[in-house]
Amino acid sequence: MADSPNCDLKSLSPLQLFERVTEQGEKVRALKAGKAPKDEIDAAVRMLLSLKLSYKTTTGQDYQAGLPPKDLVLINNGTTKEEDEDLVDPWNVQTSNAKGVDYDKLIVRFGSSKIDTDLINRIERAIGQKPHHFLRRGIFFSHRDMDQVLDAYENKKPFYLYTGRGPSSQAMHVGHLIPFMFTKWLQEVFDVPLVIQLTDDEKYLWKDMTIEKAYEYARENAKDIIACGFDINKTFIFSDLDYLGTSAGFYKNVVKVQKHVTFNQVKGIFGFTDSDCIGKISFPAIQAAPSFSSSFPQIFNGKENIQCLIPCAIDQDPYFRMTRDVAPRIGQPKPALLHSVFFPALQGAQTKMSASDPNSSIFLTDTPKQIKTKINKHAFSGGRDTIEEHRKYGGNCEVDVSIMYLTFFLEDDDRLEQLKQAYTSGELLTGELKKVLIETMQPLVAAHQERRKQVTDEIVKQFMTPRKLAFEF
Amino acid sequence: MADSPNCDLKSLSPLQLFERVTEQGEKVRALKAGKAPKDEIDAAVRMLLSLKLSYKTTTGQDYQAGLPPKDLVLINNGTTKEEDEDLVDPWNVQTSNAKGVDYDKLIVRFGSSKIDTDLINRIERAIGQKPHHFLRRGIFFSHRDMDQVLDAYENKKPFYLYTGRGPSSQAMHVGHLIPFMFTKWLQEVFDVPLVIQLTDDEKYLWKDMTIEKAYEYARENAKDIIACGFDINKTFIFSDLDYLGTSAGFYKNVVKVQKHVTFNQVKGIFGFTDSDCIGKISFPAIQAAPSFSSSFPQIFNGKENIQCLIPCAIDQDPYFRMTRDVAPRIGQPKPALLHSVFFPALQGAQTKMSASDPNSSIFLTDTPKQIKTKINKHAFSGGRDTIEEHRKYGGNCEVDVSIMYLTFFLEDDDRLEQLKQAYTSGELLTGELKKVLIETMQPLVAAHQERRKQVTDEIVKQFMTPRKLAFEF
Repeated sequence: MADSPNCDLKSLSPLQLFERVTEQGEKVRALKAGKAPKDEIDAAVRMLLSLKLSYKTTTGQDYQAGLPPKDLVLINNGTTKEEDEDLVDPWNVQTSNAKGVDYDKLIVRFGSSKIDTDLINRIERAIGQKPHHFLRRGIFFSHRDMDQVLDAYENKKPFYLYTGRGPSSQAMHVGHLIPFMFTKWLQEVFDVPLVIQLTDDEKYLWKDMTIEKAYEYARENAKDIIACGFDINKTFIFSDLDYLGTSAGFYKNVVKVQKHVTFNQVKGIFGFTDSDCIGKISFPAIQAAPSFSSSFPQIFNGKENIQCLIPCAIDQDPYFRMTRDVAPRIGQPKPALLHSVFFPALQGAQTKMSASDPNSSIFLTDTPKQIKTKINKHAFSGGRDTIEEHRKYGGNCEVDVSIMYLTFFLEDDDRLEQLKQAYTSGELLTGELKKVLIETMQPLVAAHQERRKQVTDEIVKQFMTPRKLAFEF
Repeated sequence: MADSPNCDLKSLSPLQLFERVTEQGEKVRALKAGKAPKDEIDAAVRMLLSLKLSYKTTTGQDYQAGLPPKDLVLINNGTTKEEDEDLVDPWNVQTSNAKGVDYDKLIVRFGSSKIDTDLINRIERAIGQKPHHFLRRGIFFSHRDMDQVLDAYENKKPFYLYTGRGPSSQAMHVGHLIPFMFTKWLQEVFDVPLVIQLTDDEKYLWKDMTIEKAYEYARENAKDIIACGFDINKTFIFSDLDYLGTSAGFYKNVVKVQKHVTFNQVKGIFGFTDSDCIGKISFPAIQAAPSFSSSFPQIFNGKENIQCLIPCAIDQDPYFRMTRDVAPRIGQPKPALLHSVFFPALQGAQTKMSASDPNSSIFLTDTPKQIKTKINKHAFSGGRDTIEEHRKYGGNCEVDVSIMYLTFFLEDDDRLEQLKQAYTSGELLTGELKKVLIETMQPLVAAHQERRKQVTDEIVKQFMTPRKLAFEF
């Protein structure tokens, strides 16, 4: 117990792990040669075995001395992936393609369903209005069982929405708003209860952060979420660190999920290793529990069978694949899902954004001037090297970050189409396009800041108080 | 995710595991030979790797086809034990010695301290009265940091007691009372708060039992515990399934512990394998949390640094070795411990008793007639084969279960000494000795039943309501 293996083997590359195993092997040999105490040798051997296991889990290959790993990476459903495939799990999104992750391939690999025109039309019929541009433009592109949710809705059966956020810092960027903007729209058109989980416990477990800090971030993030315009009578926002200690139903569901998922399974789904702390290993059950209405007895009057619909980015799907696998075994309905694409970094669509790099996106605290500078300086352009070439050959909308951002935030379909055509034809220059983006983002962020100012501590407290919502169950 | 490996590999013997690996290897070969779909082969290979790992964890040896395991068993601190050593962990107690587990060896192996005459004398001075016969007779035989608790007590610094029970069934036997009888005495002589954890979540995770059943057993067991005579103003009894959902502090401590313990560590301490469910893997943090006063803000007024003293059977020590290892890393004091020996089965001291075998002990629900029959029929005797031999050579008190039980329950030191001498000399016959035991146990159990009858649901509810106790902090 005295030596505490680091929780960080997971972050090592296959090659780094290979080197750690090699070093540890040498250490064991040195200890044996030096006739070190048995305890010490045993401890070193155990560490060696554990490193070899981590190596195998990461690479899918047995460690062989002198033979560095081949280029294979384990992805989140336990199969190995080729070097040119995208890596997508709750902690990593990587692609070598400037257009971003190949979402059609991801649908096949994850086994979800594409949101096609038929489904979008059905949603339109059900709600009697034009679907959100996130649906029309393929920003929410994949689903699980959305047809069942619509069946229920058409039969006047209740359902509820669940989404969430990991409060890793105070700084939220515009990309973080995507699931909340969409969820707000869903709440309005379907008129259903919404629960929003802030996984401050997860951030405490994963990051070098105190519990107090994680909880503080949760409350700060709640302000930005509330500023999206959720209805206080229909929305419950909760911090795990808080709510677990005040809910009669939540922990029971956590334990039920934990009984039905083995370490082998979370190892396969999330890539955990033996060196990970037991908090990480059991955390997936905490993110699963809000999928079951009995976790919120105050809202659902103790009813266990209310269907849940989860709008989230596709990288969160592994949690809910696991949840859907467990649900029937604990007598609960499987949650349905709507998956969004990733929001691209200003530098390009190869990576998900990072809240820790201020230049990787537009933050909700940015001034108009900062927004202008960031876009002009950092937004990856699909334009040509010279004005002459641009006029002649036109820009490439598929890799242009301004076009991507406008696809998220410019609601006017016709205007967006015009811009795309003009950019592709070369008529519109990169500078002009960026100007449109600046003029779109500046008022959007300013309006958010204005609304956030109105969110007092008292309002946060009300949203975060477990209570009955404006629905009868 | 579709195939769910059983949670039960841990219960297999090395030989059974060897057979499972062999079978699975044959299955993989058959699938490959039959050109089965790649998915199916991959799943079978992953299962094979996982079985091999379990085999290695259990036996400390690599699986070798055709070569069954050697006789080595992994014990709970990650070292291997010889065939003739006792096996002691929270789920198993095994010894081949009729006198029972060798406790002196256990102290060395666990790294705890013997409760010696000096410590007993110091306790006597501190409390100003004769120590409990469990201390005088070596029933509580080992400790960790009891001297620090006495330092604190002598300096008028507060401490509190924490003990618990896993409510695996409604049926409690007299052996289950040992920690509670002793804890009640400690509470009286030191006048300190007491918290009693009922790990209904643990029983749900480990047994084939619903959450509702586990919670029901917790409440039933609470009645037997309350019947031991605890002071309602100084004692808080809680079910995990209940209390986690009502405590502002408990879950935070659980997460803190979970962040600082890796799977490698719980594997080493508790022998968990990759096939265990994540609930079991993270459970040790739930048993650790009551060691910290901040888990009970209502009792300790939010104070974090109140010393905890845990009286328990020695098989629970692995949980608290882990807790003591984590404590300084999360800024909390290490809990102190007092360890008891195991209560022997009627059939002899080789095993711990089982609540599922009605003849293995005297149950708290037994009638006087049942007690008489059980003792006469099942209590292992250290007497000789014939009366003549017994008179000539005398009985063997070291293996005689009646003498053992009287050591626990006959408070009169002189009487016990007389009985031992008379039995050893051959003057006292086995039948006569059993009669003394019957006459000791019948009123003891009857009095318990009488007190238990007084414990209404209302009283249970009061004990189990989170509240301030009769102490200022």
